[in-house]
Amino acid sequence: MKTIVICSGGLDSVSLAHMVARDHQLTGLISFDYGQRHRKELDYAALCAQRLGVPHDIIDLRPVGAVLTGSALTDDVNVPDGHYAEDSMRVTVVPNRNAIMLTVAFGAAAARGADAVATAVHGGDHFIYPDCRPAFTEAFAAMQKQALDGYADVSLFTPFVHRNKADIVTEGARCDTPFAQTWSCYKGGADHCGRCGTCVERREAFHLAGIKDPTCYEDPDFWVAATAQKEPA
Amino acid sequence: MKTIVICSGGLDSVSLAHMVARDHQLTGLISFDYGQRHRKELDYAALCAQRLGVPHDIIDLRPVGAVLTGSALTDDVNVPDGHYAEDSMRVTVVPNRNAIMLTVAFGAAAARGADAVATAVHGGDHFIYPDCRPAFTEAFAAMQKQALDGYADVSLFTPFVHRNKADIVTEGARCDTPFAQTWSCYKGGADHCGRCGTCVERREAFHLAGIKDPTCYEDPDFWVAATAQKEPA
Repeated sequence: MKTIVICSGGLDSVSLAHMVARDHQLTGLISFDYGQRHRKELDYAALCAQRLGVPHDIIDLRPVGAVLTGSALTDDVNVPDGHYAEDSMRVTVVPNRNAIMLTVAFGAAAARGADAVATAVHGGDHFIYPDCRPAFTEAFAAMQKQALDGYADVSLFTPFVHRNKADIVTEGARCDTPFAQTWSCYKGGADHCGRCGTCVERREAFHLAGIKDPTCYEDPDFWVAATAQKEPA
Repeated sequence: MKTIVICSGGLDSVSLAHMVARDHQLTGLISFDYGQRHRKELDYAALCAQRLGVPHDIIDLRPVGAVLTGSALTDDVNVPDGHYAEDSMRVTVVPNRNAIMLTVAFGAAAARGADAVATAVHGGDHFIYPDCRPAFTEAFAAMQKQALDGYADVSLFTPFVHRNKADIVTEGARCDTPFAQTWSCYKGGADHCGRCGTCVERREAFHLAGIKDPTCYEDPDFWVAATAQKEPA
């Protein structure tokens, strides 16, 4: 199965790329620059493509990002500290981001004769991001079947959609994913901040998986308190 | 119903913008530059926005268009002459174009608090473009419901999806659409060529609607033979 992986350079999608390279025919990585403040992650996607020996497209969606205003990931709103599952993380939602990235990836897959597009959406994202839920990915795949009918047959591969981030760490470790060469922090500083939602979630996932976290955090202990305080899901 | 219209500057979408301005609350036009050779159409979208007194966004999707290779609308492949419904028109398919443009428009609508996105897909496009068929638009609307769940409620307005281009001419005339200020030709020359699929379809639509066509064509009589020779649908 010739598969294109949507790879942000984060822990989840880099692990996914390694998993697809092991189990399927990885034919390329696609990344998106939508003006995110953590653009640094794109360097880690490029490193991943080099390591796995596949082409890498970084598609410039900044003109699109400019119309999707109101999100902390692209605007001047501060990225909040705390656990990812909290309601405060709603400011990090970029409306329709996954749907937009997926339709572009499906267009590229159709143009290049790929059989599948893989995305690392996972259960831990369900709380706040509707476009990471199984109901979305299933509806998306059904829509694409109609959109490309008669021209291409591209499936959507979402191996993590019913799993959590700790499962991804476990699976990533099995595929020898070099976790130190992945980027999660939404703040995009020199090191991972350790305080934003995605840093807390990352640190917690390694803890739950029982795998050593090689990440250098500016505030390495913040996650314990943030995790203790999170709202029940 | 606050509605954003996807407007290419063509006859269909300009008529739709006039219809929405009459019947609903038109809040803006969105156009896409995906590297189409008939970029001239965008000037007519801008004129339409001016005329109707609404904001106009032209979103630069050229970096996306660059990965969607193999279509006569963006590449160096020649645009074929003949009737739009013929199999030769398949080279004008840009894979997933409508799905991509619609997801971006839905993101913008969600960010801006609009209630609906309107698109002028119509029955005459069903032969060759799968992403203009009712099965696609219905699946797309269902996907968007999931993608924006809890954040926004944006519906998809497709008043022409079960109608043909002649019906659009009839409806456009009722809304006082200035047809001479719309652009259809895929070749993007000084005047409409009169020979490409979309010119033939345009000329035929005015004929079927019994409404005078104000368009200046380089080859005004080609459509008669092309229409006579077309394959049965």
